[in-house]
Amino acid sequence: MAQKIGMLGSGFIARFYADSIQGKRTGDKVVSVYSRREESARKFAKDYGCDHFATALEETVNHPDVEVVVIALPNNLHEAAVMACVKARKAVITTKPLGRNAEEALRMLKAVEEAGIFNGYLEDLCYTPKFLKALESVSAGAVGRVLWAKSRETHPGPHSEWFWDLEQAGGGAILDLGCHCVEISRNYIGKDIRPVEVMCWADTQVKPIPAEDHAIGLVKFENGAIGQFEVSWTFRGGLDLRDEVMGTEGTIWINNFLRTGFEMFTTGKGGGYVAEKSESDSGWLFPVGDEHNDLGYNHMFRDMFQSIEEGKTPRETFYDGYVVNAILDAAYRSSRSGLWEPVQLPVWRGKVGVKKEQVFTDYDEDYYLVKEELTHYGATKLILKDKKTGKIIEKVKE
Amino acid sequence: MAQKIGMLGSGFIARFYADSIQGKRTGDKVVSVYSRREESARKFAKDYGCDHFATALEETVNHPDVEVVVIALPNNLHEAAVMACVKARKAVITTKPLGRNAEEALRMLKAVEEAGIFNGYLEDLCYTPKFLKALESVSAGAVGRVLWAKSRETHPGPHSEWFWDLEQAGGGAILDLGCHCVEISRNYIGKDIRPVEVMCWADTQVKPIPAEDHAIGLVKFENGAIGQFEVSWTFRGGLDLRDEVMGTEGTIWINNFLRTGFEMFTTGKGGGYVAEKSESDSGWLFPVGDEHNDLGYNHMFRDMFQSIEEGKTPRETFYDGYVVNAILDAAYRSSRSGLWEPVQLPVWRGKVGVKKEQVFTDYDEDYYLVKEELTHYGATKLILKDKKTGKIIEKVKE
Amino acid sequence: MAQKIGMLGSGFIARFYADSIQGKRTGDKVVSVYSRREESARKFAKDYGCDHFATALEETVNHPDVEVVVIALPNNLHEAAVMACVKARKAVITTKPLGRNAEEALRMLKAVEEAGIFNGYLEDLCYTPKFLKALESVSAGAVGRVLWAKSRETHPGPHSEWFWDLEQAGGGAILDLGCHCVEISRNYIGKDIRPVEVMCWADTQVKPIPAEDHAIGLVKFENGAIGQFEVSWTFRGGLDLRDEVMGTEGTIWINNFLRTGFEMFTTGKGGGYVAEKSESDSGWLFPVGDEHNDLGYNHMFRDMFQSIEEGKTPRETFYDGYVVNAILDAAYRSSRSGLWEPVQLPVWRGKVGVKKEQVFTDYDEDYYLVKEELTHYGATKLILKDKKTGKIIEKVKE
Amino acid sequence: MAQKIGMLGSGFIARFYADSIQGKRTGDKVVSVYSRREESARKFAKDYGCDHFATALEETVNHPDVEVVVIALPNNLHEAAVMACVKARKAVITTKPLGRNAEEALRMLKAVEEAGIFNGYLEDLCYTPKFLKALESVSAGAVGRVLWAKSRETHPGPHSEWFWDLEQAGGGAILDLGCHCVEISRNYIGKDIRPVEVMCWADTQVKPIPAEDHAIGLVKFENGAIGQFEVSWTFRGGLDLRDEVMGTEGTIWINNFLRTGFEMFTTGKGGGYVAEKSESDSGWLFPVGDEHNDLGYNHMFRDMFQSIEEGKTPRETFYDGYVVNAILDAAYRSSRSGLWEPVQLPVWRGKVGVKKEQVFTDYDEDYYLVKEELTHYGATKLILKDKKTGKIIEKVKE
Repeated sequence: MAQKIGMLGSGFIARFYADSIQGKRTGDKVVSVYSRREESARKFAKDYGCDHFATALEETVNHPDVEVVVIALPNNLHEAAVMACVKARKAVITTKPLGRNAEEALRMLKAVEEAGIFNGYLEDLCYTPKFLKALESVSAGAVGRVLWAKSRETHPGPHSEWFWDLEQAGGGAILDLGCHCVEISRNYIGKDIRPVEVMCWADTQVKPIPAEDHAIGLVKFENGAIGQFEVSWTFRGGLDLRDEVMGTEGTIWINNFLRTGFEMFTTGKGGGYVAEKSESDSGWLFPVGDEHNDLGYNHMFRDMFQSIEEGKTPRETFYDGYVVNAILDAAYRSSRSGLWEPVQLPVWRGKVGVKKEQVFTDYDEDYYLVKEELTHYGATKLILKDKKTGKIIEKVKE
Repeated sequence: MAQKIGMLGSGFIARFYADSIQGKRTGDKVVSVYSRREESARKFAKDYGCDHFATALEETVNHPDVEVVVIALPNNLHEAAVMACVKARKAVITTKPLGRNAEEALRMLKAVEEAGIFNGYLEDLCYTPKFLKALESVSAGAVGRVLWAKSRETHPGPHSEWFWDLEQAGGGAILDLGCHCVEISRNYIGKDIRPVEVMCWADTQVKPIPAEDHAIGLVKFENGAIGQFEVSWTFRGGLDLRDEVMGTEGTIWINNFLRTGFEMFTTGKGGGYVAEKSESDSGWLFPVGDEHNDLGYNHMFRDMFQSIEEGKTPRETFYDGYVVNAILDAAYRSSRSGLWEPVQLPVWRGKVGVKKEQVFTDYDEDYYLVKEELTHYGATKLILKDKKTGKIIEKVKE
Repeated sequence: MAQKIGMLGSGFIARFYADSIQGKRTGDKVVSVYSRREESARKFAKDYGCDHFATALEETVNHPDVEVVVIALPNNLHEAAVMACVKARKAVITTKPLGRNAEEALRMLKAVEEAGIFNGYLEDLCYTPKFLKALESVSAGAVGRVLWAKSRETHPGPHSEWFWDLEQAGGGAILDLGCHCVEISRNYIGKDIRPVEVMCWADTQVKPIPAEDHAIGLVKFENGAIGQFEVSWTFRGGLDLRDEVMGTEGTIWINNFLRTGFEMFTTGKGGGYVAEKSESDSGWLFPVGDEHNDLGYNHMFRDMFQSIEEGKTPRETFYDGYVVNAILDAAYRSSRSGLWEPVQLPVWRGKVGVKKEQVFTDYDEDYYLVKEELTHYGATKLILKDKKTGKIIEKVKE
Repeated sequence: MAQKIGMLGSGFIARFYADSIQGKRTGDKVVSVYSRREESARKFAKDYGCDHFATALEETVNHPDVEVVVIALPNNLHEAAVMACVKARKAVITTKPLGRNAEEALRMLKAVEEAGIFNGYLEDLCYTPKFLKALESVSAGAVGRVLWAKSRETHPGPHSEWFWDLEQAGGGAILDLGCHCVEISRNYIGKDIRPVEVMCWADTQVKPIPAEDHAIGLVKFENGAIGQFEVSWTFRGGLDLRDEVMGTEGTIWINNFLRTGFEMFTTGKGGGYVAEKSESDSGWLFPVGDEHNDLGYNHMFRDMFQSIEEGKTPRETFYDGYVVNAILDAAYRSSRSGLWEPVQLPVWRGKVGVKKEQVFTDYDEDYYLVKEELTHYGATKLILKDKKTGKIIEKVKE
């Protein structure tokens, strides 16, 4: 089977999507593209072999050949585009973030669900091959109970001018990059675990903009696990895209971009090579091999299109986009109030009343195990706690 | 467009191929599978949804639905399988190495070319995303003139029993792994540059087999560049798969498997996770994200099938497989004679009479530049050589 | 010149100190050791060739041969030991943290300063060779204005039983590990920049103890820079010791322990090797080369002893230890209140009234520069902001 | 105790040595320095606080305060300097390589031994902290039987002009860098195992010099182990200094310089920072922390001086330097003859008649074990070889 796609938008991300969708051996095809600017729509249509292009969004959405609509527009235009799909009863998948805030996101969620149309949330970084394999390991118990899941995305700032405009973007680095990080943490900790409150620091340290260009946030989940995001538009050195997970039985470290086993030094004298997303074209450079695959785009569109074909729910839906927006809303509130702000989730479909897990490991009837350690002289040393007196003792196991 | 494939073989590599071909959004399909053992053929057919299976190779080759034949058989069966395709005038692509030696390979090459059928050589490691991007950079001049191109593939030994049998395999680690390394070097140095002679050390250091389990070889090219291969079935620690390239203006280091930005520690208490190709299931493990893509299978089959569809020559053909076999033949002779052995190429289609490049860089009329260096006190120090007297001097550029 | 040292304590850290002090070619010598337990004092004296040992602290402090006293005792005993040195007018250097809280620390600071004795704070991680070189680069402007300085120290928990006892230790992972991280951040951001307030999350996620075993904190400095600490006694995989710095013109990443260019795989069949601070003795292990040097101990004692000899102030003093305690006190308060808590510094010797730097970069008379970027088609793209209207535009520089 | 040193030479390496000797807390002291050029001797004496300097070598050697002579002169001057020490009956330690060839080296060896003076060979890379710890692990059996030990040293060419002069240097990259690599391999494989023959490729690929600027060699040892060296003066990207060891039970990878856990990105706008041995001062740079310690200088001089004081033989002696020269002589002969050239060792003090070890592992009475492997479905697969028929079979262990 193959999908016929209507693409809303013709900019950087629309091209990235089209490259991912059409770049492999597949029948999936962008059949119509919409852009406000005719010149841009025409060029995109030519480059990707689309039969049709339009400067009115509805024209693409309603085009009879279009089966699924991909929204690749600035944040402030998502809602109107979704509503057009709802009206046309067309399957819709949207770039991240879903809305500029949870209110917008919830309206979109309700609209697509009431209309009964397929909805997918294009959270590519929850589809990178490393992430998918790591998540599978976590689900299989390889790291035990997840205690902390951090994701970091920082780079020297977005490509297109609309990101820097607060009205169009709806926010700064938190909204642009934090949406990835928050959903990554949710996946590791468990999507059914309720995010309870958020503490966030944000500042405009470098850029002449009203939005934040650097932020760090903590998200507390009902089971006691902690999500963390670190986002910035002021990072120097390329695109830093790392996840870290701590569990009671293990650790995961993922580097999606800068240190992936591909290193090149060039004096720059040899010719015109420019490494993508690098900040220089000489010295040590760290390219990735297959950017579309390594950043999750192939696996994401496969999940979306197969879900459509098989009548299944994709891994990431509008509901997930809405939860992410709600968490980010709390982050923005916290960055202004300086308080842990509650995550407001008028709609919540996960578990409720989850308790923090019991944290004690029994050593024997009388003692809890605090720590077991191999000493350099070959013995095993134990730190134990007396259950009754609370006293800590050391014990060497021969 | 989509391809209908007849798969010869149903073992480890046949399954790897089928996973790669059918695993993404594509119409490409294995329609018939052949295995000597009916049980194995039936199981493969069921697992991959093939309409037809056979225990006679010709049945799959000649099946009317089959458009392209993929050979995934032990080395000693390649020639007969190719000849069946020649007879049936079917497009044929073969796993590596092409033959057990250049004589077999040359017969296959001549047969497919005389028959005028499409022929492709499944050299996956010349299709990894990192390799393709590195090669593009080299072609664009990023590292200058290539001086040395090394490839290393070592692991604790192959999966299936036939590899360990000299008659079926035709050789040991040199043939099994060296075929990759040699073709990687040829690509970086230039496929049109003639490999002239080979020096190779090989030994059976650990395994109770008549073939070599460890070998190191040097391949001299007509332009003075050096290819190097390091192969072993005795490596401990997983699959070590690295390339290194030195050029006059740069360096490339690629790690395809063990250090790719994905690190996991697990106590092993958490559950059943086993990292692939790892030698343990606890401690620090280094999985890859998307093995099929990272090891080049997706890009390889795309090149093959698109070349068929567009009537083009793929990147890797039987001719390349034959050149590789000729180089490995010289390596085997050298490992026995202790001499640099000439590469015998009765058919050669590249450049002839290439000279080693002039190696002197002019500094000015009187001096050659030997070296330019930034000192820690900020000045630039030059080492120069007098063109007439040959005397070496130092000069500090303010 | 050489120093004669009185060592208070004979446990893990005392031995580490003695190994560092006496392990190289030097005349520095531990001449007396104190331990509450005679057996332990005697053994230490024998192992390190001390002429004298004592079970009364004052005996070592007052011993006529002792010129400088090293305090290597549990946290709750620092103050009394310092006071003994004050009384004896002996130079004193103390393990970290200085006090269990800023109140204790301030009393110690005042006492040593009033007594006019040399005082040093043994903050080894501010003396690692990588740290010292990185700090030098930061001071030279290599990364521009520092925006964020993070330090992370996590491992599976401390060696000795007293750390796990709240009364003796005075805190958990924040006090034990955070003291390092906070001082690292202070150094990068500038020791003369006042830490203003702290936000901290802390929890007991795994261990059966009253203290926190995992915490994350943010420290806001008066100039707008942010320090961050990540500490845990629940990490699996060894000792994770990393610093990261972001500046307007650069980035620093330091890994002090787990990935330093030394990798070993062992099946464990070969014999008795155990890698230090590793959690296993087979699989992939990541030892460090020279632990004492790599962790800063050699450079630290050199600074201390040379400062004594030259009558200089060492890099790290009781004043620094007191500031660190004050920051950690705020962290503890914040972890309970959920608020940004002010850092209370009754004594402050750095700058006051520092303003956040102006963050706008001029492009020309009319525009601010938001971002400059190399495109993959070779041009330089600018994002600019109109100074008057605030409008963001894109401009391509040919 | 402390040593009084006479330094012969005042150039780059003499300064490196003096920094290492005097840089830490020690009484070791350079008391006299010799340089042919008075200006250079005077400056060195001033910089390092030497009481005496000379422009006649014997003056320094014979100076009554000098107890141990350090030779830091061009290769062609080693022998005369050693003979002066012999005459003066002074302890002597010499920079690498010992001689320009084994003939020179053997004369020096005989002379110092007949004179009964202390002799040490300054092979710093056999003293790096990582190397020492790795060697200790190998000795403890952590990697089993060593099969292959490779060392690689490549950079863009030496600092001083005399290296580029064949008469003074005695050779090119093989002699300059290969001496390190060969001794590293010998240590891992066993210094008592006789190096039997050498195969070496060498070429002048880039530099306008009569000596080789790039070479690769294999050294066969009597027990079947293989040493490998890769050396070049044409590498771009800094100083590449890596060792790799393969054993039957493990693997060691050491990176001494370029990837040691210290990474810095700088736009270069911030100021005057220049990373040492880097080829650029912007982009991603990879400094080392403590160059003297990380490159082995501190541990080397400690071993030398303590051996003198304790009347012991240091780890590296003139005998080792002589064996290295003999191996390199064979490498030079091989690079010209194209043959495996025997290592000529008129003096050999290690084992003789060592046999290659038996390579078969028993599985049971009837079978040898070829390989054991964890399958992804959790079972253990065995490859076995029938002891009588030689037939290879697969067996799955439940």
